[in-house]
Amino acid sequence: MKLGFIGLGRMGQAMAQRLLTAGHALTVYNRTPGKTQALIAAGAHGVSDIAGACAGQDAVVTMLADDAALREVVYGDGRLLAALPAGSIHIAMGTHSVAMIEELAQAHARVRQTLIAAPMLGRPEVVAAGQAGIVPAGPADALERCRPVFDAIGRQSFVAGSDPTAAIAVKLANNFVLGCAVEAMGEGFAMTRKFGVDPKVFLDVLTQGLFAAPAYKVYGDIIAREAYDEVGFTATLGLKDINLALAAAQSVGVPLPSGNVYRDRLIGALAHGEAERDWAVMARDQARASGLVD
Amino acid sequence: MKLGFIGLGRMGQAMAQRLLTAGHALTVYNRTPGKTQALIAAGAHGVSDIAGACAGQDAVVTMLADDAALREVVYGDGRLLAALPAGSIHIAMGTHSVAMIEELAQAHARVRQTLIAAPMLGRPEVVAAGQAGIVPAGPADALERCRPVFDAIGRQSFVAGSDPTAAIAVKLANNFVLGCAVEAMGEGFAMTRKFGVDPKVFLDVLTQGLFAAPAYKVYGDIIAREAYDEVGFTATLGLKDINLALAAAQSVGVPLPSGNVYRDRLIGALAHGEAERDWAVMARDQARASGLVD
Amino acid sequence: MKLGFIGLGRMGQAMAQRLLTAGHALTVYNRTPGKTQALIAAGAHGVSDIAGACAGQDAVVTMLADDAALREVVYGDGRLLAALPAGSIHIAMGTHSVAMIEELAQAHARVRQTLIAAPMLGRPEVVAAGQAGIVPAGPADALERCRPVFDAIGRQSFVAGSDPTAAIAVKLANNFVLGCAVEAMGEGFAMTRKFGVDPKVFLDVLTQGLFAAPAYKVYGDIIAREAYDEVGFTATLGLKDINLALAAAQSVGVPLPSGNVYRDRLIGALAHGEAERDWAVMARDQARASGLVD
Amino acid sequence: MKLGFIGLGRMGQAMAQRLLTAGHALTVYNRTPGKTQALIAAGAHGVSDIAGACAGQDAVVTMLADDAALREVVYGDGRLLAALPAGSIHIAMGTHSVAMIEELAQAHARVRQTLIAAPMLGRPEVVAAGQAGIVPAGPADALERCRPVFDAIGRQSFVAGSDPTAAIAVKLANNFVLGCAVEAMGEGFAMTRKFGVDPKVFLDVLTQGLFAAPAYKVYGDIIAREAYDEVGFTATLGLKDINLALAAAQSVGVPLPSGNVYRDRLIGALAHGEAERDWAVMARDQARASGLVD
Repeated sequence: MKLGFIGLGRMGQAMAQRLLTAGHALTVYNRTPGKTQALIAAGAHGVSDIAGACAGQDAVVTMLADDAALREVVYGDGRLLAALPAGSIHIAMGTHSVAMIEELAQAHARVRQTLIAAPMLGRPEVVAAGQAGIVPAGPADALERCRPVFDAIGRQSFVAGSDPTAAIAVKLANNFVLGCAVEAMGEGFAMTRKFGVDPKVFLDVLTQGLFAAPAYKVYGDIIAREAYDEVGFTATLGLKDINLALAAAQSVGVPLPSGNVYRDRLIGALAHGEAERDWAVMARDQARASGLVD
Repeated sequence: MKLGFIGLGRMGQAMAQRLLTAGHALTVYNRTPGKTQALIAAGAHGVSDIAGACAGQDAVVTMLADDAALREVVYGDGRLLAALPAGSIHIAMGTHSVAMIEELAQAHARVRQTLIAAPMLGRPEVVAAGQAGIVPAGPADALERCRPVFDAIGRQSFVAGSDPTAAIAVKLANNFVLGCAVEAMGEGFAMTRKFGVDPKVFLDVLTQGLFAAPAYKVYGDIIAREAYDEVGFTATLGLKDINLALAAAQSVGVPLPSGNVYRDRLIGALAHGEAERDWAVMARDQARASGLVD
Repeated sequence: MKLGFIGLGRMGQAMAQRLLTAGHALTVYNRTPGKTQALIAAGAHGVSDIAGACAGQDAVVTMLADDAALREVVYGDGRLLAALPAGSIHIAMGTHSVAMIEELAQAHARVRQTLIAAPMLGRPEVVAAGQAGIVPAGPADALERCRPVFDAIGRQSFVAGSDPTAAIAVKLANNFVLGCAVEAMGEGFAMTRKFGVDPKVFLDVLTQGLFAAPAYKVYGDIIAREAYDEVGFTATLGLKDINLALAAAQSVGVPLPSGNVYRDRLIGALAHGEAERDWAVMARDQARASGLVD
Repeated sequence: MKLGFIGLGRMGQAMAQRLLTAGHALTVYNRTPGKTQALIAAGAHGVSDIAGACAGQDAVVTMLADDAALREVVYGDGRLLAALPAGSIHIAMGTHSVAMIEELAQAHARVRQTLIAAPMLGRPEVVAAGQAGIVPAGPADALERCRPVFDAIGRQSFVAGSDPTAAIAVKLANNFVLGCAVEAMGEGFAMTRKFGVDPKVFLDVLTQGLFAAPAYKVYGDIIAREAYDEVGFTATLGLKDINLALAAAQSVGVPLPSGNVYRDRLIGALAHGEAERDWAVMARDQARASGLVD
């Protein structure tokens, strides 16, 4: 396919690289130009403005940090919405708000373009290894046309439905279930530590039993070692994420009480100067509430 | 070893059978006599009172449903505390309260007996297959002497420490982390269902990704199919269990906010006549709060 | 009326004094004998055992600290249940658990005695001033017979119903609403302090507006001045109380999520060595969670 | 003073009327022109654009429904920020977000204007009766200059500080404490109803005791009568409000766990089609969770 790609942070670069490797014709744009060099060396066509990445493409992928960045790329003269051909597809693969995706789907529809939301599951190194999951949602025919894109980037696609917001819901809910697991471990570790249990033993009980899964192994290990400076995802980002989940859930009339719990822990982390530590630091806020640390 | 065994419900029978298979000399007692027949046929010595199961033993195992049952077995003329020889060990393998175990440890110490708490991880069929985990805690020398018991019953022992309450804490915390996972899934499924996502798809996202573990596969499947009448553990028992965890945590100054959340869901289940459905019914209470079911 | 009175702590003494002043014939008993002296001087008949306080009375009032104390007074040879005449009434005016009152009502019924639960609203000095409220519940005819007792002790009776547990529910719910108000203020003060607002100003906004009531004036003032050592009711007692409320609510299928919140704050207070400060110290736990204090 | 007034909903009209009565020279503007007629008849000068309400004024008052409305009035050619003279004051009296007020304070400062935030406490009829409270915050000299405005409109001013966001914090915290009280009553009423207590009795216990204040009398009465269609403030607005409070608190590192609780109740109300009933309907969501209503 003829593809544009906008947004070349660490995730974006890993994804674009896989598209190139799979043989797609790729035009790349990034606000900070240096990030396109490796891809151009690998065969991508580099352009210096957004319009150049959109003109004449079958589809354009955006992989942007947040709603504000997406908004800036999409709206305005020479931006995505104006430059993408009618009949073409915008595949938004970042984690955005439901409200943003809803608005964007309508904006694209008005100019006979199609929006697919297809957030990524997994970190850059997982993407690079071809092991990432993708959660696409959008009109069935558009999903069908974009299948080669998803096949090239990820290991598996989980089609969430025909409304792009469904993909956002799945992505946010997956992260939410993870946040709950981290919080639950934080509470369990605090309790067992107070009874004198070696955190390593409790970690073994969990991960060699009912919880023999990456979520518990990775985050349980961080909590057991109190290694909150090995940062995969900051408390600040975790807070942004749960706020997106809470807003999405509110929009469809769903309370998320467990989400409230870990959101409060992340706010506690911020209040104690730990905004840039790994979001597992919510376990440290639990330990603080339990009088285990200051 | 010369062992007594008191409490032959489904778990107790599976455990006693494994002790026999491993060659231990086993004297069995149950309040309802019928439950000892299979074990006697397999070589156990059956007795008709508690004292008979305690006299002359190296150790006696109790596997009882709750504190009330344990209390009745232990205290009084001709009961465990009176009949067990000095120097002998009481291995309490049921799930009891921290307060009960603390009191019991002192009562045994006063008559120069030793208490080990060693709650089981896993259901009867897991025990029968020799795949259960055990969490023993107690004085190191007593643990060492009882190692053959644990080796015979389970796949693996996770030693929680020298104070028996530490084992209770680990067991309750493990169940607590499970309850939190079930609740988190309940919230995630409610949210994604409201966005029109097929529960099967969300289940796949979870269990083929970060949550590829029994806790999520078993309970996620029940929730996705709304199969709350496939009862492994009732809402009533789940509520009893989280109350034990909350009391244990309170006793050492640890709040369990995520536990509050799922306790409230279980109470909601009770309020709606669902006390005897599987405790995953907390997900149904979440669905009710979200307007998905009545 | 011919009345017995058992339990002469500060509340009990104030109540008994009012019964004497109103002209009732009062026989008093307390485990610690010294506490009856002032009452005997004022005309009460002092006795040295529980049976003596029960024999021949129309009714006997108990004002005891908790279930354990009540249990000890009621059951056993020469205790209340054995010594009270058939047809007579036990008025339990302490704050007890629903489970205890339920059990006790049945025990009394079996020996043709009647139980009224009639917990007090208000502190000893309020009782002494004749300004306390009383929440009686029990069979209508027994309530009618005991009306002179309630009229003598308090300013106003709020009849909760014909089942004694209803009175417990009202008393616990009233305390619960108070706990929620204290917690809400704790959160509001933490938030406004972080915005640089003088606590005195926020206190004025509350108590000169929608919240011009004792609950807010008394506890708002303690929180604004951080005067947690002016102890009216300790964190330990507050925790005991909310646990009674949560158990009562569970027994009828009612979640109390706001109760969970302040229970966790009280546990946090305990974890930080503040068990014996005023229960308004939950606001300090909130301040700690917000990074305002250590 | 020479004053402009923008935003003449029910609150705005009541406030503007009081300014006229106090003798201020008032120029009024509303997007829907009809709303200015009564004020013009009472001596106000009516204008047809925002600039006309700002030009030459000592200060201009805005009383707008939300951030979006304020944003539209402030920014753009011929709008407030452009038309207000340097040295003049913008008194924002609506309930806005902390983020909006922060941004606006900076925008005004850049063009040498001053922002005061001065949210109102009380409903239109309370304002009309001269009984409303006002919470102003801003630079001390600007507050001093605007004192005649506040004296004319309200009964009492509670100065929150020199940063306009402090006023927002106080206003949101006051509403938050109210929401918590409503939720606490909802929980208490559900519990006592399940024990068979007449809601009127529990209401009396509360409002004739510790909670003899408008918050409890007004909302307790609505809950006791289940009169959720007597709408003072809708569930939708209540939800908007608690979201503002949660965002404000997050921005300064303060968790509001009691706010989470009632936010979830309001979301439950929305999920059950009760968005436009009075926000006391959170008590109905609690009753639903308790199996009392469907």
